[in-house]
Amino acid sequence: MTHAAEAPGAGARVRHYLQFSDLNADEYAYLFERAALIKKKFKAYEKHQPLSDHTMAMIFEKASTRTRVSFEAGMYQLGGSVVHLTTADSQLGRAEPIEDSAKVISRMVDLVMIRTYEQTKIEAFAAHSRVPVINGLTNEFHPCQILADIFTFIEHRGSIQGKTVAWVGDGNNMANTWLQAAELLGFTVHVSTPSGYEIDQSVAGLRSSESYKVFKDPMDACRDADLVTTDVWTSMGFEAENEARRKAFADWCVDADMMAVAKPQALFMHCLPAHRGEEVMAEVIDGPQSVVWDEAENRMHAQKALMEFLLLGRA
Amino acid sequence: MTHAAEAPGAGARVRHYLQFSDLNADEYAYLFERAALIKKKFKAYEKHQPLSDHTMAMIFEKASTRTRVSFEAGMYQLGGSVVHLTTADSQLGRAEPIEDSAKVISRMVDLVMIRTYEQTKIEAFAAHSRVPVINGLTNEFHPCQILADIFTFIEHRGSIQGKTVAWVGDGNNMANTWLQAAELLGFTVHVSTPSGYEIDQSVAGLRSSESYKVFKDPMDACRDADLVTTDVWTSMGFEAENEARRKAFADWCVDADMMAVAKPQALFMHCLPAHRGEEVMAEVIDGPQSVVWDEAENRMHAQKALMEFLLLGRA
Amino acid sequence: MTHAAEAPGAGARVRHYLQFSDLNADEYAYLFERAALIKKKFKAYEKHQPLSDHTMAMIFEKASTRTRVSFEAGMYQLGGSVVHLTTADSQLGRAEPIEDSAKVISRMVDLVMIRTYEQTKIEAFAAHSRVPVINGLTNEFHPCQILADIFTFIEHRGSIQGKTVAWVGDGNNMANTWLQAAELLGFTVHVSTPSGYEIDQSVAGLRSSESYKVFKDPMDACRDADLVTTDVWTSMGFEAENEARRKAFADWCVDADMMAVAKPQALFMHCLPAHRGEEVMAEVIDGPQSVVWDEAENRMHAQKALMEFLLLGRA
Repeated sequence: MTHAAEAPGAGARVRHYLQFSDLNADEYAYLFERAALIKKKFKAYEKHQPLSDHTMAMIFEKASTRTRVSFEAGMYQLGGSVVHLTTADSQLGRAEPIEDSAKVISRMVDLVMIRTYEQTKIEAFAAHSRVPVINGLTNEFHPCQILADIFTFIEHRGSIQGKTVAWVGDGNNMANTWLQAAELLGFTVHVSTPSGYEIDQSVAGLRSSESYKVFKDPMDACRDADLVTTDVWTSMGFEAENEARRKAFADWCVDADMMAVAKPQALFMHCLPAHRGEEVMAEVIDGPQSVVWDEAENRMHAQKALMEFLLLGRA
Repeated sequence: MTHAAEAPGAGARVRHYLQFSDLNADEYAYLFERAALIKKKFKAYEKHQPLSDHTMAMIFEKASTRTRVSFEAGMYQLGGSVVHLTTADSQLGRAEPIEDSAKVISRMVDLVMIRTYEQTKIEAFAAHSRVPVINGLTNEFHPCQILADIFTFIEHRGSIQGKTVAWVGDGNNMANTWLQAAELLGFTVHVSTPSGYEIDQSVAGLRSSESYKVFKDPMDACRDADLVTTDVWTSMGFEAENEARRKAFADWCVDADMMAVAKPQALFMHCLPAHRGEEVMAEVIDGPQSVVWDEAENRMHAQKALMEFLLLGRA
Repeated sequence: MTHAAEAPGAGARVRHYLQFSDLNADEYAYLFERAALIKKKFKAYEKHQPLSDHTMAMIFEKASTRTRVSFEAGMYQLGGSVVHLTTADSQLGRAEPIEDSAKVISRMVDLVMIRTYEQTKIEAFAAHSRVPVINGLTNEFHPCQILADIFTFIEHRGSIQGKTVAWVGDGNNMANTWLQAAELLGFTVHVSTPSGYEIDQSVAGLRSSESYKVFKDPMDACRDADLVTTDVWTSMGFEAENEARRKAFADWCVDADMMAVAKPQALFMHCLPAHRGEEVMAEVIDGPQSVVWDEAENRMHAQKALMEFLLLGRA
């Protein structure tokens, strides 16, 4: 692998992680194993610094705590460095064309993580970047979160293949990403959203609709599920719709009743921050089936495996 | 010591530094000695990096230069890394309960420093944190500043035991912390505040009122003092009271007359930033008894000793 | 070299880089050679970390992407650390006198980079700093950009001595710095600005006016030039004049006609961000004579050589 400022194309193609479908099942199998090893080393205070002499630019157009800390602390633990840019420093596409920003920034660093609005923005950046670009959340996708969620599932229950994931709530970037993951890794997603907030299958770009089923009633979606998961009613960028959403989502609150119809061993996940009493009851998120704190921590371990893979390939 | 994400309670109890009274006299004796050694190494460009592979999250809900630079540069010099979060990134207790933020963040880093408003906020965070939490200033306390001040006193004059510190001005977080320090380390604080700005002894939670004396006239407080110290009339968060405070504090300006009644060897300290002509005259802060620049620098050395101690125990 | 907090004056005088004229021709010859070596190592992924155990404070009073990423990533690659301060953290000269900030910050770090408004501010800071201060752009000068530009010219065309640089557009900080560079390194600058936006020679403080020529018509300035360069019509801080400037600068757009009268081997440079269709046409900045991406990347390499030189002297 050549350094950031090397002309691309000479060697291996630059790999980006813009959607869940950017990696294949075999690569995911590697990443989940690698994340487990990296986590084990972390717990044992065993240094693992393959990315010393590597620098990542993190570009945030939306605020973040979890994505920020998990990527930044993760990069430091891998021995690397981080330049943290917010819209106060540079707003993608405003002061200059995204293409120009991509050309300049990717000459100076080895890796770029972007949290932004439209997926088209991160794709435009990646198209002109000499170094790998990672999607840290867009309006359409949140692949790093699902990477961590599946890693967490595997950690607690083993392979996710053939299992059922119930998505309760907004047909948002998380839902889109679950659909991609289900098709790629061979599991099923049960989706139940309020009317008007359905998923748009065209976003995920699936080959077929075999890997997911839509349910009107969230109870039906949760029935026999191995994992029940949800998200806030109003994601970042949709605050203006707050009131309308409160009404529409009232019946899409994950409670003990929903968990009761899922499998006895079912897990509960939430990408956080959570609003107890809205999308999830305290009895669930703070209950014995909830693995939300492991899930949050695993963002870091899974992303460390991802960063290492994009920069150095398989170990 | 296990790494950040290890379950707590298995081994040694996690130590926090939320108030000056969180450490005992013996531990302070160790810290002052250790800070001197760490400072000596720094001056000699001798690497001292016991915290490589350690990451600290710094959470600022109030702006800061000194606290920011002293902690962040100090952590780098110790070989560690820093994730710097402001309210733009996450406002404690707003997007999610403080308890949730504490659980998540303390899974990913090894140490957390917080500058916030109410002491109850930092205590709530610490109660749910798996890793040590350091108070980088609250409305009630500023233990790291007094740690540095006493280290600076010792550096210039030897032990502070039995000595007299004159606190002139606002009965604020600095004053509260001096009271705790005096009781713990065996010296006396002379406090003189304008009427209406008295210290509230209940905040410091002293065992007795033996270690401090209150004076109406700041000249009386300064008489025979070994150290005269003050702070801005209007601390962060009280800007609305600015005008009222200017009038009330007019006679609480540390000038040459006050220094003249103190001991001939008396030092002057100020945690900065200073407003010459308000709480202190230029003749004092820029005069020969002032050690304010050493005091500012010593924030870094003292905090390096503190961070090392909280993470690794005694060397 | 002693560490940051050592008293200055004991050994070698602290060197600052506030204007281009702060270094001499011999030192520039060294820097350009050194930058080439440092760049070569970077491309080959060969570690070069002479500044491990060094920390830089970066103070931004104006936003920045290029200056931010180039300095911060550069410092990390050299093995050092960065504390990034914005006006949200501390506004120079507002909360406390600049002199006090300089005294405090320079006790804790080894190097300070400042992007601010008036040159007098950075000079006041440097006068009270114990460590080297670098100008990362002021209203009057932008020496690091010209350092990178000349390094880029040398990389593509060899020595700049005796050559001609055409400056088309605003008589701003870039223009002032080009004038200083021309006198120091023995080349000529052709300046053409709209009426009312002329350079003020007194700012550059030249010994004579031999090294530059003023042209009314930008075509005349470009004739036989070895390098044509320009900048946005409205620099940061002048946004209020935006409309007036659009009219005044209409004929100062670098287009194919201007490049056609320059030497056949002439290069085009722009410090970016660029506004295509305003100060430069897409046919030029995206054309074969443009080296703007190399120029942007070279900010980092040139500044790495500069930081190393200011802290450690010649290698």
